[in-house]
Amino acid sequence: MLKIPEHQVAGHHASNGTLGPLIDDSGRFYKPLQGDERGSAEAAFYKQFSSNTQIPDHIRKFFPIFYGTQVMTASDGSEHPHIVLQDLTSSRLNPTIMDIKIGSRTFGHEASDAYIAKCLKRDRETTSLQLGFRISGLQVYINDESGFYKPPRDDVLKSGLDDVRCLFRRFVSSNPAPAAVPQELEADAALASNVYGGTEGILAQLLELKAWFEDQTMYHFCACSLLFVFEKRLALEGVSQNAQVKIIDFAHVTEGKGVIDHNFLGGLCSLIKFISEVLGDCEEHKTDQEGDS
Amino acid sequence: MLKIPEHQVAGHHASNGTLGPLIDDSGRFYKPLQGDERGSAEAAFYKQFSSNTQIPDHIRKFFPIFYGTQVMTASDGSEHPHIVLQDLTSSRLNPTIMDIKIGSRTFGHEASDAYIAKCLKRDRETTSLQLGFRISGLQVYINDESGFYKPPRDDVLKSGLDDVRCLFRRFVSSNPAPAAVPQELEADAALASNVYGGTEGILAQLLELKAWFEDQTMYHFCACSLLFVFEKRLALEGVSQNAQVKIIDFAHVTEGKGVIDHNFLGGLCSLIKFISEVLGDCEEHKTDQEGDS
Repeated sequence: MLKIPEHQVAGHHASNGTLGPLIDDSGRFYKPLQGDERGSAEAAFYKQFSSNTQIPDHIRKFFPIFYGTQVMTASDGSEHPHIVLQDLTSSRLNPTIMDIKIGSRTFGHEASDAYIAKCLKRDRETTSLQLGFRISGLQVYINDESGFYKPPRDDVLKSGLDDVRCLFRRFVSSNPAPAAVPQELEADAALASNVYGGTEGILAQLLELKAWFEDQTMYHFCACSLLFVFEKRLALEGVSQNAQVKIIDFAHVTEGKGVIDHNFLGGLCSLIKFISEVLGDCEEHKTDQEGDS
Repeated sequence: MLKIPEHQVAGHHASNGTLGPLIDDSGRFYKPLQGDERGSAEAAFYKQFSSNTQIPDHIRKFFPIFYGTQVMTASDGSEHPHIVLQDLTSSRLNPTIMDIKIGSRTFGHEASDAYIAKCLKRDRETTSLQLGFRISGLQVYINDESGFYKPPRDDVLKSGLDDVRCLFRRFVSSNPAPAAVPQELEADAALASNVYGGTEGILAQLLELKAWFEDQTMYHFCACSLLFVFEKRLALEGVSQNAQVKIIDFAHVTEGKGVIDHNFLGGLCSLIKFISEVLGDCEEHKTDQEGDS
């Protein structure tokens, strides 16, 4: 039984004339190959990467499992090749998700003038050039009645520096939606310690990735995203191993040719700094409260 | 007694109608303020930075000492403001020098369309976009008879990936110049351990800088260079504290506004990887030789 995924926060969706991704009951995600060279480039990356013995296990876990490619037949009888991947949200009931495109530039150094111009415009309009990353989308689970806080994609892409700071707090807040209450009561970041902190939290995972990026010279992960996923219920219960970081979207990966991916690494370090600051603020706040009591 | 510095490997030189920098006998370097806003921006940076109490001492040592600004009168009676700095080569007899412009882009995120187009063209023509830095110039002392290996500036800027690897080896070689000998005898990198390695070598200094750049959000060091300087004689004698790293050229520094300088940091990490590889090759080679004997 194939269905349309409920929990996609960025990327291509099915619309008139465009195929969107599908999921099945067994935890697989079917991503249609984009028609131009991007689709074949992404499939080629997954094939090469999944058989690359140079990738340590503690790094491979950041990548979706690749099950191969599969031609699927649409209701009109037309055939479409898909990449079959691990569905990253299949084990989650109400996943809170953020998609962050990493890198101050989203084009490779050998891209064409026209492609560079197009990407650079987008990188300047969003926070990519300034921050080294941009938030492409998010959904934050509130509760069964209210569902998800999920700001429109275009609003998210228009975020400035202060909005981004705020979104990193909302992402880990028990009250993520803009509330009709004084400013200071918004975005309590109550789940920061569980989600961002700890030895298995998002910050620890980002630092693990960073150490690899300081060394690996095989790939340049141009225009790739990091996906953060966690379950609010588990965060409230204080369960560790709740939050996951994954790298996705490999249509623009290029060969590293012996050079580190300084564009991804720089953006990753900037992201680490933002996450550290939210975490630091929360822990300081906690200490203050303990001091007061 | 003012004179023209002998050991400048990049940057602006005196020429018809253009003022160049001067040095005096007391170890001061007089840099004419560039006529447009760049000159005043650089002077403003030095003033602000030199009184910024947030800069730890172990980081301040990477910056030239700033002695203020001074108006100097040219032989035709015209007056020109100069920035007065520490002359970084005054204590060196035959300094071996490399100037490396850091960052895959040399423009800030708020630059104008025209300025971005100009910088991006240059960043693509050189290795900046690919490697996260470009070598702007170098001179390598050979001996008193042969003087310096100092390839023409334009040739250095045209370097590709393999040329850059080679220049990092030549920089620490006892035979740096292209020799009429078989390829494998070129660039022995004999001084790598002394200059790049050790607790006070260039690599250790770059790692110290990197740790600061992972944290500091005050400045974005756009289009700045790192200068490597050492004395061959001292390297041959195995003297530590021989090689120095300095940051120079602050005409395009912008405020960090709470964001790390991911562009500089990414380029710095890429540079660190290159230097580590030269050092690793040399140490491996040494081990092989020891194994053979």
